Amino acid sequence: MNRYAIQHIVDSSYCFPVSGNEIVLRLRAAKDDIRSAEVIYESKYVFGTSQRTARMEKTNICGLYDYFSIKLRLDDTRLAYVFRVDDGQQKYFFSEDGVSEQYDYSLGYYNFFQYPYINSADIMECVDWMKKASFYQIFVDRFNIGKTDKDMSYINCKWGDLPTPKTFAGGDLKGITRKLDYIRSLGCNAIYLTPVFASKSNHKYDIRDYYRVDEQFGDENDLKELVDAAHEKGIRILLDAVFNHCSEDIMQFRDVAEKGKASPYYDWFIIYGDKPERHKKNYETFGDCSYMPKWNTSNQEVSRYLIDIAVYYIEKFDIDGWRLDVSDEVSHDFWRSFRKAVKRAKKDAVIIGENWHDAYSNLRGDQYDSIMNYAFSKACLDYFASGKHDAQNMAWKLNELLMRNSDTVNNMMLNLLDSHDTHRFYSMVGEDREKVKAALCLLYLYPGTPCIYYGTEIMTPGGYDPDSRRCMDWEKADDAAAYADVFELLQKLSGLRQKYDLASGKVSIYSQNNVFILKNTLDGGIIELFINNTDEAAFAEGFEIGAHGYVVRVNGGEII
Amino acid sequence: MNRYAIQHIVDSSYCFPVSGNEIVLRLRAAKDDIRSAEVIYESKYVFGTSQRTARMEKTNICGLYDYFSIKLRLDDTRLAYVFRVDDGQQKYFFSEDGVSEQYDYSLGYYNFFQYPYINSADIMECVDWMKKASFYQIFVDRFNIGKTDKDMSYINCKWGDLPTPKTFAGGDLKGITRKLDYIRSLGCNAIYLTPVFASKSNHKYDIRDYYRVDEQFGDENDLKELVDAAHEKGIRILLDAVFNHCSEDIMQFRDVAEKGKASPYYDWFIIYGDKPERHKKNYETFGDCSYMPKWNTSNQEVSRYLIDIAVYYIEKFDIDGWRLDVSDEVSHDFWRSFRKAVKRAKKDAVIIGENWHDAYSNLRGDQYDSIMNYAFSKACLDYFASGKHDAQNMAWKLNELLMRNSDTVNNMMLNLLDSHDTHRFYSMVGEDREKVKAALCLLYLYPGTPCIYYGTEIMTPGGYDPDSRRCMDWEKADDAAAYADVFELLQKLSGLRQKYDLASGKVSIYSQNNVFILKNTLDGGIIELFINNTDEAAFAEGFEIGAHGYVVRVNGGEII
Repeated sequence: MNRYAIQHIVDSSYCFPVSGNEIVLRLRAAKDDIRSAEVIYESKYVFGTSQRTARMEKTNICGLYDYFSIKLRLDDTRLAYVFRVDDGQQKYFFSEDGVSEQYDYSLGYYNFFQYPYINSADIMECVDWMKKASFYQIFVDRFNIGKTDKDMSYINCKWGDLPTPKTFAGGDLKGITRKLDYIRSLGCNAIYLTPVFASKSNHKYDIRDYYRVDEQFGDENDLKELVDAAHEKGIRILLDAVFNHCSEDIMQFRDVAEKGKASPYYDWFIIYGDKPERHKKNYETFGDCSYMPKWNTSNQEVSRYLIDIAVYYIEKFDIDGWRLDVSDEVSHDFWRSFRKAVKRAKKDAVIIGENWHDAYSNLRGDQYDSIMNYAFSKACLDYFASGKHDAQNMAWKLNELLMRNSDTVNNMMLNLLDSHDTHRFYSMVGEDREKVKAALCLLYLYPGTPCIYYGTEIMTPGGYDPDSRRCMDWEKADDAAAYADVFELLQKLSGLRQKYDLASGKVSIYSQNNVFILKNTLDGGIIELFINNTDEAAFAEGFEIGAHGYVVRVNGGEII
Repeated sequence: MNRYAIQHIVDSSYCFPVSGNEIVLRLRAAKDDIRSAEVIYESKYVFGTSQRTARMEKTNICGLYDYFSIKLRLDDTRLAYVFRVDDGQQKYFFSEDGVSEQYDYSLGYYNFFQYPYINSADIMECVDWMKKASFYQIFVDRFNIGKTDKDMSYINCKWGDLPTPKTFAGGDLKGITRKLDYIRSLGCNAIYLTPVFASKSNHKYDIRDYYRVDEQFGDENDLKELVDAAHEKGIRILLDAVFNHCSEDIMQFRDVAEKGKASPYYDWFIIYGDKPERHKKNYETFGDCSYMPKWNTSNQEVSRYLIDIAVYYIEKFDIDGWRLDVSDEVSHDFWRSFRKAVKRAKKDAVIIGENWHDAYSNLRGDQYDSIMNYAFSKACLDYFASGKHDAQNMAWKLNELLMRNSDTVNNMMLNLLDSHDTHRFYSMVGEDREKVKAALCLLYLYPGTPCIYYGTEIMTPGGYDPDSRRCMDWEKADDAAAYADVFELLQKLSGLRQKYDLASGKVSIYSQNNVFILKNTLDGGIIELFINNTDEAAFAEGFEIGAHGYVVRVNGGEII
């Protein structure tokens, strides 16, 4: 047995409660090393004298490791356990003290693994609607102009011109409201908007007044109208919480810039010196952007100020959650308070961080529900775009990503192919529409919640910012025939998510003959995805998939 | 290179800030596998184009793994990093995507490791006085009778009779106050008391009134007097927070037992049925003890009620912290609120959980500061008592335990050889006084804070509860000559802790010729401990240590 590889971490993504009396355990071992794994368990106060045994299932195979899993149903939720693994030659025990050939249960209280007690306050709850949601992300300035009676003088391009960093194209909230039926026709039932509050930029990540809808985008009534109309059509609305930083134009920062340490807001920012001075860059900012000073969220007044904003938009506008900009640079402490307040205001509001990396320390149940899953995007690029991953590596990678977090979190991950912060996926795959469609199948069927970036449905190309933020091409979008295949695909995929409770299924991800396979076994049937990302037809599980082909089957019948 | 063994986990005990611009990184590898390890790092916004490199040191050698560590001082605290390791034949990179032979920095934003930003709210602060503290644990009923004008009718044994589970011996708070000079004479400067609140048992872990000092132990004035007198002598006082459960006699539970669901306190407990019924055991309890109903700390009213108690004793009596009974069965959510309130009331109050197992999920900075280090106790039993560990295994084990938590936590761990919940260490080592003394040397010099259980200094024997809770033998304790060697040892050891800032040193733990060696290299010198736990003299680092001998040297000069 490979002792170096075996791993279990208590009270982590290796061990998490999913209800008042159910707990999921995972065990990692070297690939192909362990023939069988069992968990030996009991209530911790009787573990010394009696134990139960349950066989674990090998559920996730990665590049280096196999993961075994089990969901235990407990009578007494004070769980003590050790593992017993069999490498085909010998059985070993695995406890908090490591691997051993014998195990003395009577001394277990020193070294068994344990989940001491399932307290309801510690069970991370899934935001249920996320399980059936399909998101549409909108960069507001570039989506659609709806308000024609506003002052249009800020618009500095023709709709459709390639954007520069300083382009203002005129998109607004009413423009989105007008297109809700369009969005619904793509099967989407949730929208995430980039920021909408007062700001001088086109992206509005530099906010000068959180309590005002930016006048380019409309006003409070337009926001209310959008949320209400969306809700009427069964569409949820997420706003972008830019709480890491603000604009240098915000009242508090202007006050500090003027009065320095005499300002009551001096400690609202992180300033090295008597007052912030732009040319000295003597204060913390977002990235290298001196016009975006970083909030000192470790200051309790700042924390209260920002959290009040989060609650205000839930209470007054009934929004359905927040996407958190640059959330990884904000303190855990802040997000803990934020979560408490947001969930108190609306229990099923969802909280989605912008962390590009492993964010487990934010996803333990006390901070966010989910993140934008850029690690998934990267895997898709490595498979569909660069070819760095073959089907097998892709399967291993996607399994590995699932092992970062609990199943609860996995079912709320906001999976995406691209966004306003990346190149357009369509361009990355050499404008190959079939590749985008294959990737969409994966996006919609992989555990979590899919999010497509506006224009994906009409194969909008684009490089990095600002090119990924082009104006929505409504001529194309309104030409029903030209993209009927994509629209239909999205409808079918979101329909599947509606019809089946994908999150309740057992997902297996693997490959055969360089065909990527994802299988979701549900109470109501089995959903299968096959992708052949090679230049030759291939046989997998008994049938042929053409070169660069993809197939979705439901209970054996091909639907895509 | 052994790819299975290599490990780094972001924002964990592998990566933690220790100040506003310092961060510690640890890297795990298979033992003897890696010749050198480097961290390649930079501010995350420039990592794509420029990087710095620093060599890591192999600091902790365990049974299976080597750990490399480094403390980085940062200009920009947005840290991006990957590792480069050399196995003597080849160099490898190690990133969030695993081990690779090449690494493309320009795509690092997808897969570098990162600590996105050091927010001051997330830096776990060390309770500084813990670094120089030496604790004395007292089981109150058995330590000393000080109050002679109280109703003594509850006392049901002669002082010194072997205790039964129902023994009341008469010890009280005034008895402790009278012995403060004695405790000080052992070099101890902190006392942790088992519970002192109104309760019908001798141990008082079944509390019926948290706002009353148990009348057997005295009254509020006695508690105030004890804390004040202790503070005057430079001794800190910790009380025992029994917040997992209470007594069936507490007002709230009696109300529920009477009124069932009509009681406002019904949801303060976890009851399966209309009302709690003892013979049915239809409510959650501590262990199997129906007289100790478990609090429903997931109920916010209960949470507030208990936290108010914690704050009350800090504010009114100025106690210096809380030991948390059965803390692992109480929710993380509760301890987070608890910590906020306690630290607000007294910034340097210490919070010490009773977790017998790996408690990292409670020790991330948002809940406790420390735990009672029973894993350390177990290692000492395995080395000094059962001989299961030789010196090498003991060194490996103690290194392994240090890798469970951050250095900040390690420096606050409450290390102990025994307690009211274990056998007496003296009995476990066959009443071998020299073994106890050797173990005390280790206890005081291992990272963390030592805690001796009352009577250790006079070699009190005892089996498991109730035998580990014998009356303090004052005849022995007052016989200065009989235990002068132990008293002197404790004074010297606590003196060392006072004189040197042990927590600031670099600790190496290893073995040579079956001699256990702990070396602490400080600015002010080097402190060394050698233990030969074998039947034969042994040479280590050039000098001889007798059979079952131990030596403490300061800057090369033997002091013990």
